[in-house]
Amino acid sequence: MAAISSITIRRARRDDVGVIVGMLADDPLGRGRERLEDPLPLSYLQAFEALDNDPNIQLVVAQDGEGAVVGCLQLCILSGLSSQGASRGLIEDVRVAAHCRSRGIGERLVQWAVAEARGKGCKLVELLTHHTRVDAQRFYVRLGFQPSHVGMTLRF
Amino acid sequence: MAAISSITIRRARRDDVGVIVGMLADDPLGRGRERLEDPLPLSYLQAFEALDNDPNIQLVVAQDGEGAVVGCLQLCILSGLSSQGASRGLIEDVRVAAHCRSRGIGERLVQWAVAEARGKGCKLVELLTHHTRVDAQRFYVRLGFQPSHVGMTLRF
Repeated sequence: MAAISSITIRRARRDDVGVIVGMLADDPLGRGRERLEDPLPLSYLQAFEALDNDPNIQLVVAQDGEGAVVGCLQLCILSGLSSQGASRGLIEDVRVAAHCRSRGIGERLVQWAVAEARGKGCKLVELLTHHTRVDAQRFYVRLGFQPSHVGMTLRF
Repeated sequence: MAAISSITIRRARRDDVGVIVGMLADDPLGRGRERLEDPLPLSYLQAFEALDNDPNIQLVVAQDGEGAVVGCLQLCILSGLSSQGASRGLIEDVRVAAHCRSRGIGERLVQWAVAEARGKGCKLVELLTHHTRVDAQRFYVRLGFQPSHVGMTLRF
């Protein structure tokens, strides 16, 4: 296994989409929501094109020293009037490959996103984590986040 | 007072920014975060330009029959890979003027956002509401939202 020091964070490419979907699907909540098929459903590739062309969205992956993708995170930088017109960063879809967990890769990804949001002038970074993901909540608190809000969702 | 039937939802204009900031500031949490001054701090107008030029963001206002702005809401449509590449809608900065509350204006705004997100192909609408806003949480549950997530924030 590669050491954490060899992990690099880079922008996701189209040929990473399959591995990313694999990580999204390998999850108690994702299992019922994703379709990990070969070939990959077109909707994933269309979504990749859309987000890759959006100047406010960055989908990044964590890559180990051998070039394998072992984590992902999406950061959106959003304008808004509140907090004196402060931009905010929204973190979504944070995943680490099952065989690489508890090695600091998630922390590297989130710290990257926080630094990136800060560098782009955000005064706030926010995210929603499912109420059952108690370990994730502890993880984010350790990184300085507060469980200050209720995250409400409506699925169609 | 205008009847709810006379309320229209329209895109916010630059000359609405002062009234919107007034609503953001007239709030237990907003009071400490906003600067309602005349002239308005430039940061609000710069943020308005940025969001108004972002094709994925819609800042809308509720206007009564006499043309007064009595509510606001921001909707962001975000691409992402999860849920089979589904776009999601993020609702932010929902406010109704203090003298117009409990008349269904907030509901009109949120229903507009849900319909708009749905029309743009979103499979999910999400929002964060401060844990102290218990009435807001009840309001969103009544509109079909679930308090499924913890909303975590990090302020710089």
